[in-house]
Amino acid sequence: MSITIEPTATPSLSRRSKPDFQSQFLVTILKANTNPNLVTFAGGNPNSASFPVSEMNVAADGVLQENGFAALQYSGTQGYLPLRQYIADRYRTSGLNVEPAEVIVTNGSQQALDIFSAMMIDPGDRVLVENPTYLAALQTFHLYEPEIVPVPLREDGIDPHALRRAVDEKRPKFAYLIPNFQNPTGLSYSERLRSEVSDIFRGRDILVLEDNPYGDLRFRGEPAHSFGWYLGEQCCMLGTFSKIVSPGLRIGWIVCKQKNLLEKMLVYKATLDLHTNIFGQMVLHRYLTDNDLDVHLAEIRRLYKHKSEYMIACIEKYFPAGCRCTHPDGGMFLWVTLPDGVRGIDVQRESINRGFAVCAGDPFYEYERNVPHIRLNFSNGSDEQIDSGMRVVGEVIKQLLNRYQTNK
Amino acid sequence: MSITIEPTATPSLSRRSKPDFQSQFLVTILKANTNPNLVTFAGGNPNSASFPVSEMNVAADGVLQENGFAALQYSGTQGYLPLRQYIADRYRTSGLNVEPAEVIVTNGSQQALDIFSAMMIDPGDRVLVENPTYLAALQTFHLYEPEIVPVPLREDGIDPHALRRAVDEKRPKFAYLIPNFQNPTGLSYSERLRSEVSDIFRGRDILVLEDNPYGDLRFRGEPAHSFGWYLGEQCCMLGTFSKIVSPGLRIGWIVCKQKNLLEKMLVYKATLDLHTNIFGQMVLHRYLTDNDLDVHLAEIRRLYKHKSEYMIACIEKYFPAGCRCTHPDGGMFLWVTLPDGVRGIDVQRESINRGFAVCAGDPFYEYERNVPHIRLNFSNGSDEQIDSGMRVVGEVIKQLLNRYQTNK
Repeated sequence: MSITIEPTATPSLSRRSKPDFQSQFLVTILKANTNPNLVTFAGGNPNSASFPVSEMNVAADGVLQENGFAALQYSGTQGYLPLRQYIADRYRTSGLNVEPAEVIVTNGSQQALDIFSAMMIDPGDRVLVENPTYLAALQTFHLYEPEIVPVPLREDGIDPHALRRAVDEKRPKFAYLIPNFQNPTGLSYSERLRSEVSDIFRGRDILVLEDNPYGDLRFRGEPAHSFGWYLGEQCCMLGTFSKIVSPGLRIGWIVCKQKNLLEKMLVYKATLDLHTNIFGQMVLHRYLTDNDLDVHLAEIRRLYKHKSEYMIACIEKYFPAGCRCTHPDGGMFLWVTLPDGVRGIDVQRESINRGFAVCAGDPFYEYERNVPHIRLNFSNGSDEQIDSGMRVVGEVIKQLLNRYQTNK
Repeated sequence: MSITIEPTATPSLSRRSKPDFQSQFLVTILKANTNPNLVTFAGGNPNSASFPVSEMNVAADGVLQENGFAALQYSGTQGYLPLRQYIADRYRTSGLNVEPAEVIVTNGSQQALDIFSAMMIDPGDRVLVENPTYLAALQTFHLYEPEIVPVPLREDGIDPHALRRAVDEKRPKFAYLIPNFQNPTGLSYSERLRSEVSDIFRGRDILVLEDNPYGDLRFRGEPAHSFGWYLGEQCCMLGTFSKIVSPGLRIGWIVCKQKNLLEKMLVYKATLDLHTNIFGQMVLHRYLTDNDLDVHLAEIRRLYKHKSEYMIACIEKYFPAGCRCTHPDGGMFLWVTLPDGVRGIDVQRESINRGFAVCAGDPFYEYERNVPHIRLNFSNGSDEQIDSGMRVVGEVIKQLLNRYQTNK
C-alpha cells in the first residue's frame, strides 16, 4: 500500500504566535550559545568551572540507591517537600519568614514568571517595570497583552518620584523589580531606596514581584533586605538554583503568601507540565544537604569578582573615550553606555560578524529603540576570551564612532 | 528597625485563573497520589517496579564523569540533539520519516500539548476531540478558549460518519486524537478506521494532533499505523518517555513537520522555561543507548497484560450485573460503564471515602455530566490492592444501585 501525501495549506496560527521584538534577541542569544565559532558575552551563562560536577554525581548515586523509585515516578505539582523546606530555611537565615507551603518549585524562575503572569494579567492590565529590565520578562508579559509601564532606573535603584507618579496614575496590577545586580544594568537598590519604594507600595492593591537570581552572587558591599522583608505577603519572590548551582537542571521557585493566587498557580502549573522533574529536584536537594552551599558560593563570588574587574580593566583599555560602564557589586552583567551616535544594535551586529556576541540594549526596553547601550556578561568567558573580545568590541565601537563623526 | 505589615487587599487575578471543571478532578487525582491512606486507581502512574533504577544510576554516572559540565549548563531550547536523533530513529523503525530537526523535547508531552495549543488556538477557534477524551487535554485547550467539538467513539475508534459531519460543519483548526489504548477508554482505532479517518482529513486545512503515550505498551494484537504515516506533515505527533522509562524525568516531545509552526513553538517554549532540563535528557539518552529499550518494553508489556487481565477478572467477580468494561489490548486504563441510575461521580466519592480512589467519567467529557462511567488504572496497583479495591468499588456500585432502585 502506498500513500500519496498531498500538500496541505499552512495552518493559520494563533494571534499569540505573532513575532515579538524581544524574541528576535532571545533567539540570537540562544543561537550564539550553540555556535562554536562565536565567543559569547550575550547570554547569562554561569561559568561552568563553578559547577559541582563530582558532588552532583555522588548525590545522584545516593538518590538512586536509596530512593530510586520515587525519583523516577510522578510527583506532586508543588515540588519536592524537602527541597521546599531547604529554600524556606535559607530565607529564614536572612530574616524572612517563609513556609515550605508558600513555595512552588518551577522549571527555572523563568517558568515562575510565566505562571505568575498568566494568573495575574488580563489584556490591558498594567505591569510596572524598571527601565531597562530583563528582556525575557518583557517577552513573558507580552504573552498576556498588558500595558507595560517602565520607570527609569537611577544608580541606586528605581527613581522613586517617577515610581510614585506611575503608581498613582497608572495603577499597575503588579511591579516587577530586580533589586540586586539588576539585569541588564548590574545596578542594585540601596537599602534606603528599598525602604522608600516599599512605602510607596505598602497597603496598595499592587503586588511586588521581586526577581532575585543574582542576590547570592554579591562579591562586594553589604547585602540589603528583600522587598519580602518590607512588604510581607504583598511581595512574591522569584528565586533559582541556575546561577548558584546549575542552570541545566532547570530548577527555580516562587514564594507566594497569597493563598488564592498560590492555589491558582498550582493548578495552572499542573496543566502546563504536571510538575518539575523530580529526579533533578531530589539530586539537587541531596547535593545541598551533603555540601555547604555557602562554601561553594564563596568560590563563585571570588571567580566573578575577578571576572568583572578583569572585564572592566579591558573595557578601560580598549573602548574609546565617551564609553561608560557600570561597576556592579555582584551578579553577571555590566551595562555599557556608548558614545553619542553609536547604537547598540550596530555594535551587536558588527561584533557578531567578528566572532564575538554581545547583546544590544534595545530588547531591555519596552519603547526605546536604537539605544546607545550594550549588555555584557562577565561570568562566562575565560580571561583570554574577555581580553580579545573587549579588544574587538572596542574596535567596532571606534569604527562606528568614526563613521558617525564623518557623516555628521 | 521594625516593620509593620499592613494587610493588603487580595489581588484580583486574571480571567484565565477562573476554575475549570476538569481541574477539580486533576487536583483530586494528584492529591490521591500523595495521600498514604488511599490506594489509587485514579491516576496514570506506571508501575514503579518497571523503572530501570540501577541502569539509570550507571547512566547518570557516565554522563557526569564524561560530560558533566555540559549536563549542568544551559542548553538549546529544542532539546539534546542525540536524544532527538534517538526519537527520530525509533519512528523510522515503524516506517515514519522523522528528522531530529522536526522534534522538540518538552517537559512531558503535557507541555507539548500546551505549546501546540498556545500557538494554534485563538478564542472561538474549534478543536475536534474524541468523546470522551483525555481530561488534561481539555483543560489545556480551555486555557485558549476554543469551542470544543466532541465526536463519539465506537469500539474501533472515532465514528467516521459523525467525524465527517463535524469536519464539514465545524471546520475545526485541528483534531486531537489518541488512536492507541485511548485515555480514558483503553480503546484503539482499527487500521481500516485509521485509513478512513485519514481520508476525511487529507488535503484539508486541519492539522491532526496525534497523542501516543501508550503505543509502545501493546500486549495483544498487531500495531497499526500512526496518522503521521497516513498524513505526513498534516499530522503533529506527541510522544513521551513517561510511560515507558520514567515520568519523574518529565521528558516528552512533539514531532512537527510544519516549519513555521515549529519555529513559533520553539520561541514560545524558550519564553516559558528556556529549555527542558538537560541533565535528565542526557541521562535518559545514555540509558537508551546503553540498554535495549525493546527488552525493557517486553517486561512492562508482560506486567501490564497480567494487571489488566487480573483487574478484569476482579471486576467480573465483584461488580454487579449491568456493569461492562472495555478489554484494552495495551496501555494503562479501562473504562467501566455502570448500570442504569448509577453515576460515576457518586462511585468516585464513595470509593474515596472507603480508601480507594477511582476517577469519574465526567471530566473526560466537554458537555455531558453525571455520566455512568468510571476510569480505572490497572498498571499501578499490586494484585492485592486490585483485588481489595475492586471488591470495595463493586460494593459501592451495588449500594448505589440499590438506592436508585429503591427510590425509583
